[in-house]
Amino acid sequence: MERVPVLKIGDILLVSIQIDMEDQVALQLQEDLADRIVATGAHGVIIDISALDIVDSFVGRTLATIASVSRVLDAETVVVGMRPAVAITLVELGLSLPGIRTALNVELGIAMLGNRADGDDALFDDDDESGPAVVTTP
Amino acid sequence: MERVPVLKIGDILLVSIQIDMEDQVALQLQEDLADRIVATGAHGVIIDISALDIVDSFVGRTLATIASVSRVLDAETVVVGMRPAVAITLVELGLSLPGIRTALNVELGIAMLGNRADGDDALFDDDDESGPAVVTTP
Repeated sequence: MERVPVLKIGDILLVSIQIDMEDQVALQLQEDLADRIVATGAHGVIIDISALDIVDSFVGRTLATIASVSRVLDAETVVVGMRPAVAITLVELGLSLPGIRTALNVELGIAMLGNRADGDDALFDDDDESGPAVVTTP
Repeated sequence: MERVPVLKIGDILLVSIQIDMEDQVALQLQEDLADRIVATGAHGVIIDISALDIVDSFVGRTLATIASVSRVLDAETVVVGMRPAVAITLVELGLSLPGIRTALNVELGIAMLGNRADGDDALFDDDDESGPAVVTTP
């Protein structure tokens, strides 16, 4: 079965959606993401949809569910890379992705999450921290 | 046509391969990557293949070509996320991916590229970090 990989970068999880989000794939992704958030103590999830030509209501709902689950697990979700045409279609369909934060690209998404973390030095300290990353004020 | 997105994170380009690398997709990816390296001045390319069940000789050659082209453009390539079964199959096939550096996951790949850059403050310089994570003296 096809599966969307979840990449860990610092305390952010990155997902690049490139395949059709059928039911099974979407459910698996939700599960994988929730597991990884808990396992890694990640504080942010970035979902890149730059490969998607179409975002229909099912994908929209999947993204919303992922954002909600992540929030409950104390991780913020940012959807990045949306194509202009996709944005137009979404709004025309009456889907404005409520509750989902967006950024133009991965870098801006990381910056957005970094700002939330108030000093993101936790982002790239490769020597691993055990337990959830805690923002340390110097 | 399907297209593998190239994500920019700091001065690294990240590619997560999830779809079958048919001829056209592979060629397009090579082109996209070369263009992005030139456009962004990226110093590193990370190719995540954790979603791939199979890496045949064509994919192996594609990765090698990408690595060579990147090198000519002054960017180093690291292939990350290879599954154990894939590694075994590759070696059994006599494909040991010469000229391609590998790392276990994206984070280690970034660390590997960071070391090469000799102080990768360009990578995430939004604000303070106390110097490069690891300094290797030649």
